[in-house]
Amino acid sequence: MIKASVIGATGYAGAEVVRLLALHPEVELVYLTSQSYIGQQIDDVYPHLKGFVNNVLVEQETEKIAESSDVVFVALPHGHAVSTGEAVVKAGKKVIDLGADFRFRNALVYEQWYKVKHGAPALSETAVYGLPEINRERIRDAVVVGNPGCYPTSALLALYPLVKEKLIDPQSIIIDSKSGVSGAGRTPAIGSLYTEAAEGIKAYNVGRHRHTPEIEQELSIFAGESVYVSFTPHLTPMIRGILTTAYATLSDKAKSLNLNQYYREIYAREAFIRVHPEGVWPQTKWVLGTNLCDIGVAADPRTNRVVVTTVIDNLVKGAAGQAVQNMNIIFGLPEKTGLEVPPLYP
Amino acid sequence: MIKASVIGATGYAGAEVVRLLALHPEVELVYLTSQSYIGQQIDDVYPHLKGFVNNVLVEQETEKIAESSDVVFVALPHGHAVSTGEAVVKAGKKVIDLGADFRFRNALVYEQWYKVKHGAPALSETAVYGLPEINRERIRDAVVVGNPGCYPTSALLALYPLVKEKLIDPQSIIIDSKSGVSGAGRTPAIGSLYTEAAEGIKAYNVGRHRHTPEIEQELSIFAGESVYVSFTPHLTPMIRGILTTAYATLSDKAKSLNLNQYYREIYAREAFIRVHPEGVWPQTKWVLGTNLCDIGVAADPRTNRVVVTTVIDNLVKGAAGQAVQNMNIIFGLPEKTGLEVPPLYP
Amino acid sequence: MIKASVIGATGYAGAEVVRLLALHPEVELVYLTSQSYIGQQIDDVYPHLKGFVNNVLVEQETEKIAESSDVVFVALPHGHAVSTGEAVVKAGKKVIDLGADFRFRNALVYEQWYKVKHGAPALSETAVYGLPEINRERIRDAVVVGNPGCYPTSALLALYPLVKEKLIDPQSIIIDSKSGVSGAGRTPAIGSLYTEAAEGIKAYNVGRHRHTPEIEQELSIFAGESVYVSFTPHLTPMIRGILTTAYATLSDKAKSLNLNQYYREIYAREAFIRVHPEGVWPQTKWVLGTNLCDIGVAADPRTNRVVVTTVIDNLVKGAAGQAVQNMNIIFGLPEKTGLEVPPLYP
Amino acid sequence: MIKASVIGATGYAGAEVVRLLALHPEVELVYLTSQSYIGQQIDDVYPHLKGFVNNVLVEQETEKIAESSDVVFVALPHGHAVSTGEAVVKAGKKVIDLGADFRFRNALVYEQWYKVKHGAPALSETAVYGLPEINRERIRDAVVVGNPGCYPTSALLALYPLVKEKLIDPQSIIIDSKSGVSGAGRTPAIGSLYTEAAEGIKAYNVGRHRHTPEIEQELSIFAGESVYVSFTPHLTPMIRGILTTAYATLSDKAKSLNLNQYYREIYAREAFIRVHPEGVWPQTKWVLGTNLCDIGVAADPRTNRVVVTTVIDNLVKGAAGQAVQNMNIIFGLPEKTGLEVPPLYP
Repeated sequence: MIKASVIGATGYAGAEVVRLLALHPEVELVYLTSQSYIGQQIDDVYPHLKGFVNNVLVEQETEKIAESSDVVFVALPHGHAVSTGEAVVKAGKKVIDLGADFRFRNALVYEQWYKVKHGAPALSETAVYGLPEINRERIRDAVVVGNPGCYPTSALLALYPLVKEKLIDPQSIIIDSKSGVSGAGRTPAIGSLYTEAAEGIKAYNVGRHRHTPEIEQELSIFAGESVYVSFTPHLTPMIRGILTTAYATLSDKAKSLNLNQYYREIYAREAFIRVHPEGVWPQTKWVLGTNLCDIGVAADPRTNRVVVTTVIDNLVKGAAGQAVQNMNIIFGLPEKTGLEVPPLYP
Repeated sequence: MIKASVIGATGYAGAEVVRLLALHPEVELVYLTSQSYIGQQIDDVYPHLKGFVNNVLVEQETEKIAESSDVVFVALPHGHAVSTGEAVVKAGKKVIDLGADFRFRNALVYEQWYKVKHGAPALSETAVYGLPEINRERIRDAVVVGNPGCYPTSALLALYPLVKEKLIDPQSIIIDSKSGVSGAGRTPAIGSLYTEAAEGIKAYNVGRHRHTPEIEQELSIFAGESVYVSFTPHLTPMIRGILTTAYATLSDKAKSLNLNQYYREIYAREAFIRVHPEGVWPQTKWVLGTNLCDIGVAADPRTNRVVVTTVIDNLVKGAAGQAVQNMNIIFGLPEKTGLEVPPLYP
Repeated sequence: MIKASVIGATGYAGAEVVRLLALHPEVELVYLTSQSYIGQQIDDVYPHLKGFVNNVLVEQETEKIAESSDVVFVALPHGHAVSTGEAVVKAGKKVIDLGADFRFRNALVYEQWYKVKHGAPALSETAVYGLPEINRERIRDAVVVGNPGCYPTSALLALYPLVKEKLIDPQSIIIDSKSGVSGAGRTPAIGSLYTEAAEGIKAYNVGRHRHTPEIEQELSIFAGESVYVSFTPHLTPMIRGILTTAYATLSDKAKSLNLNQYYREIYAREAFIRVHPEGVWPQTKWVLGTNLCDIGVAADPRTNRVVVTTVIDNLVKGAAGQAVQNMNIIFGLPEKTGLEVPPLYP
Repeated sequence: MIKASVIGATGYAGAEVVRLLALHPEVELVYLTSQSYIGQQIDDVYPHLKGFVNNVLVEQETEKIAESSDVVFVALPHGHAVSTGEAVVKAGKKVIDLGADFRFRNALVYEQWYKVKHGAPALSETAVYGLPEINRERIRDAVVVGNPGCYPTSALLALYPLVKEKLIDPQSIIIDSKSGVSGAGRTPAIGSLYTEAAEGIKAYNVGRHRHTPEIEQELSIFAGESVYVSFTPHLTPMIRGILTTAYATLSDKAKSLNLNQYYREIYAREAFIRVHPEGVWPQTKWVLGTNLCDIGVAADPRTNRVVVTTVIDNLVKGAAGQAVQNMNIIFGLPEKTGLEVPPLYP
């Protein structure tokens, strides 16, 4: 049994790690930490877990936790995972950070967009960007995994096949994403109230969302050149789910290709990616509660552009599920272990 | 492996049986029938199932299906299960009917409320009302199970402990239920449109909903007298879920009892019932996607009444999940088999 | 032109008073106060008002405000309206309080349920309970109006015709209410988040909601005896709206009556009440954005009970609209002035 | 008083025309037609209108209707307005068609995208495209107005200022739109059910939605060259509202401009357009129930693109409200007449 602990278990991402690990046949939950609910059982804070997990929430004593765990999931606001990560690594254990602290190869980019000093740039450089469909081999040997952001997961899985084969002009990319409200977390804020978020949609942080440099970092690696994208996130009235609609101008190389078939081939062995037939455009609900990423793709000859849509559950493939997938890879388990439930529909 | 077929696999209840059996370690899906989608794969009709089930939907040839199956789930509109049930029984197999055709001991009551002739009153008399928490022993040996309606499941689990121990005046019962829209099925109707059902709530079929006599039949058995209830269903803007709020006047016998503790004791061994502490009132989302029934209960000394609230997922404990639970009982499996996933929250 | 000010203009109820007065042909808005947004324009806080109202939000300097106003609307948390009310009365102006501070004839009842000392019990005794359909004559001459709570408005309009004519046993009343999330106000709280409130329903404060004594106070006046009710509020996934389902046992006197027709007659001259034909049960959306109260009513001979459902927009007839209606009465205007917009549907 | 009739009064767009004209001080409703509800009162079909409009729905006898009316609003499925339009014109009256039949200058384009023969290409050529902010002068004298589609309204108001001043490369335009479900009308369809549309988002008709050529026709006029766009509509879980996010590459000419200020100037005299300050991105709810179009705009120097978002209520500015605005222009009334209600928020 893998001994796993979760730092920050009462935010939505952390609680979702707990929910998934509760099902996982090879995992034993050791410590769950919280700031607001120390001393309470997690199933009092989250009654849906009653009968499944009843750990008492504890303070974050990192060394003690690292010692008793094989892997530590960190689900803290950015800036708070660095020292935790260092301590766990020092204890010789694995870290999977669901925040932004270990996603950037270049700490300066992180510092510029997140407006905080990075406490351990060297450790960050050695961390692996945990998108298994692309970095699987490197994740296997990772000590620290920077688990991708929700938007970047949906955007990169949409664009990877196009960029890596130079089927598009990488400077023409436009990424229009629509996220459910759980992406904003459980901290009360006016904009996340039912009254404010239901029955309406809005763009936010246009041109300056912090997931932009993360997307650009990875696309630049695929492209072998510096890529800049237009990225617009939208707050959408649904609890879970991200739909990303990506646009780009096709290169000459793409012209002879059936893009839909190409996507099906490139992702054929992926357990969590489902490419739909041409003309079928997935809906976020088709993946609800699962680690799946569904893809629709078609060329538009009228404009010489390609349109790709991807849908994920932002709390699963966009956070906790992908973290568990990464854990499975690190510990040599089949990637689907503990992640086999079909989507909940309708 | 239990060989199971589903008649009417493309309605919401039928598709949910399929989704649950896809996970079930002891079941093999044999035939899935449909009227509207014959010849298509079920995962083309319901793309969320892609990668999980890909049976081709077939016409309903009952004899052939019965022959190849150990158990047949029937998810048809009322009136259509009778002849199917007869054929399956004739073939020596088990029937679990998710509709109303086998729920009534007295076919006349059925005929009066459903306005159709019952084709096999004798078979109906031998069917077992499939509420495992109450009829578990009889279900074990059942050939035909009349799987309870969604509202009756929530109402009966709320009231059973009170009525059977005469803790309330059985003629004082008021049942105010709130259901999600999936209860209305997948057949397009104006009242079920997003535009009409979102952001509003309404009562419907006040005093004349067809689940009323079903509730009364079972309560009368518990009480040992004819019980009549006020039952008001409400259409609530949510996809899944039923919340039932039940009210009744306490008898003298109840006065010395701690009702909350009594409920905890009476349901202590039930795998799918969670009684919450006094003052905690469950929310439908705490059971989303699962076969659980959560209960809140408290006496109100100001009015000498008791208030009980129960929440279920109408498509799971209120339909498909309970059907699978009944199958597990019939085939001697642990009741939780295939039904162990924690609720999806938020 | 009536000079009107709003104390607490940036909560939902206060902002709704502003939205309605912006349309009102006989009103000039003088001061709008806020605690959190002093110095900002109200249309920066609420951009939907851009082009309609652009007052700068000011601190609450009550005397100055009272001096410049004919009427002061108070939309503060309970406990905070008392001193404001006193100051406005002293200045010889009218007060319409949307909170609970002036709703109770007996300050002790208020203190017991609201757990705060009432600062001006004598003033409270002279205040008029602002339900125009019942207290119209007394409102005309009121100096202080205690504007009814949202739940009580829906419950009292449902039950008034029954109780005052002794058509029911007043001790048999059960009130099951379903409210939209705006009833919880704009202050961020976990339970009001989209993620927590969408797609689920729950009962809360069962048997101890603060609107209970308010309902009982008025019903007791109608009945001429002390009435106690079971009242259960439910948080429902919609922004606006309250549906109240009320149940009671019919008296002999009711037996010869056509209740539906009786309701139509008793409310025939009311501008804001629409009684629907027997068998039509209103939906909250039928009154969205308006001061209307729609009613459905029918006797149930099987149980000898009556079921009444009422729907209102909790922020309009349940708060700001009723306050404006009260203002119209006090200032001798037709009650519909400024309240004539049809509901928004779908 | 203007005598107005509505052909197709029981679809959402038609019923919204009725709701708005019920408020309109200069209009008398003459005939309301329906196919499904002939002989019923409109307030029985739409109870929210009870007390506001009670016309009996009649069959469409066009000549009789035209004779008794000054203006006829047509809210029929495409293909059905042509002969109606011809008859009304023959009677010397005005036609405002909310469908697609009179939107295209070139009937061949219509026929290619809508797959039906156009019955009166010559009449279509003389019709005026009813976007008042751009075609106000020509609308004044129009006999037939082709009222714009909902998506085109939001897209054209977003892009008009950029295209007409050549501030962008017109061939670089990408339009990503998110619409509420009422855009799909009131005809029951699986995809419009609450269960299917709530809590999820999807793209549809990617690259082949029928509003594409309408957008391109108008943009080509602004640009003075043939413009082709990528247009992707998305079905969003809200009843009303469209948010359009438009992207384009800036031309050199744009570089010295403050785009936000430019938008404020160009739309300064428009009664229904509100340009928000830089960094404020409007939400569909800010315009709910009104004829407003709110705009957010900013240049992104990182990518040399501009992002514009517009929000409208698809049933008002995207259909019925714009139709009333056009009527006001034709009959010489102030454009805001009957359209002055502030948005409903929250």
